[in-house]
Amino acid sequence: MPTDIINELYKILEQRKSADPSSSYVASLYAQGTDHILKKIGEEAAELLIAGKGGSQNEIIHETADLWFHSLVLLVYKGIDADSVRSELERRLGQSGLEEKASRPRQ
Amino acid sequence: MPTDIINELYKILEQRKSADPSSSYVASLYAQGTDHILKKIGEEAAELLIAGKGGSQNEIIHETADLWFHSLVLLVYKGIDADSVRSELERRLGQSGLEEKASRPRQ
Amino acid sequence: MPTDIINELYKILEQRKSADPSSSYVASLYAQGTDHILKKIGEEAAELLIAGKGGSQNEIIHETADLWFHSLVLLVYKGIDADSVRSELERRLGQSGLEEKASRPRQ
Amino acid sequence: MPTDIINELYKILEQRKSADPSSSYVASLYAQGTDHILKKIGEEAAELLIAGKGGSQNEIIHETADLWFHSLVLLVYKGIDADSVRSELERRLGQSGLEEKASRPRQ
Repeated sequence: MPTDIINELYKILEQRKSADPSSSYVASLYAQGTDHILKKIGEEAAELLIAGKGGSQNEIIHETADLWFHSLVLLVYKGIDADSVRSELERRLGQSGLEEKASRPRQ
Repeated sequence: MPTDIINELYKILEQRKSADPSSSYVASLYAQGTDHILKKIGEEAAELLIAGKGGSQNEIIHETADLWFHSLVLLVYKGIDADSVRSELERRLGQSGLEEKASRPRQ
Repeated sequence: MPTDIINELYKILEQRKSADPSSSYVASLYAQGTDHILKKIGEEAAELLIAGKGGSQNEIIHETADLWFHSLVLLVYKGIDADSVRSELERRLGQSGLEEKASRPRQ
Repeated sequence: MPTDIINELYKILEQRKSADPSSSYVASLYAQGTDHILKKIGEEAAELLIAGKGGSQNEIIHETADLWFHSLVLLVYKGIDADSVRSELERRLGQSGLEEKASRPRQ
């Protein structure tokens, strides 16, 4: 059975909190703070849109990984457990199979 | 041991391919096609930036789940296995612990 | 000589501050506040990326107008004069013709 | 009467088509092509969201200028006249004062 990649990544990203920003990319993200991490998420989302519109499957895979990776960096930086996101996703699974979102009020 | 939420979601999203767009939110996304799914990813990314900048932990959790959810919808729609993203993330884990990205040439 | 469309729009958007949110789209944006206006900017930016990647010239024109329009709504809502953006753009023009940005330190 | 900054910028950006990418920031954007220009628009939009959520008025001005600047670069690169965007914005002004958008069908 495969290990849960999200949890595994989370643990390593957590360890990077004590790494040297000059040699660790992740530690450098933490050192630059919230705005910088959010800018990276914005960049990676833009790259996923561009890949999704015209790119190869490999580009979509690459950009999705980049986007998830940097979202996890945000969670770790903010001290939010990845299990919270898991629970939120499971909650949707439980509600008549993903259809919760449609009925949820949106702004 | 927890099940892998990404794989579990993927399977259910895959099943929604045969659901009725008028009653299934996910099926309605597939029916509207690539541009619509990408717009949703763009929207959710924007909402994560806004939550990350000033929102509560719950808002960040909620928006991260929304963003991952819609990225998975894109993968399923494009026929890309979630394991490809897992492998891409694992590849980074293998390369001296997440530091691959820093050495990867960026535009 | 054409009137300055940015200033003209700004004035009308300013007048909408006293309009009824139930009958004026712009007034409804103001009523929903900063987060909602920013979400609209995020959406329109995503739509411009999608149009820019694969859309027609008309779609690019339409989405650029949408993006500028909603950025102006933000300026008006925040009480920022459009002339400030004009001055910022003119400042770049003055610095050896737009090349300021390259030399500006970036995060 | 102030000159129209959008048209003025457009002309200079147009002239940059023949500049050397190694010394002109704008020429380097053209040389890198559509995807790169769109990534910059995505980045600047993300930075505007972040500034709009928590930044100073100066940051909002700066990021709005960056976003408009890079949207204009896209127009020039795609051979789309800035007057087309002006006309699109004027068309909305003409339709009972900006309220066109609310009545326009949205996906």
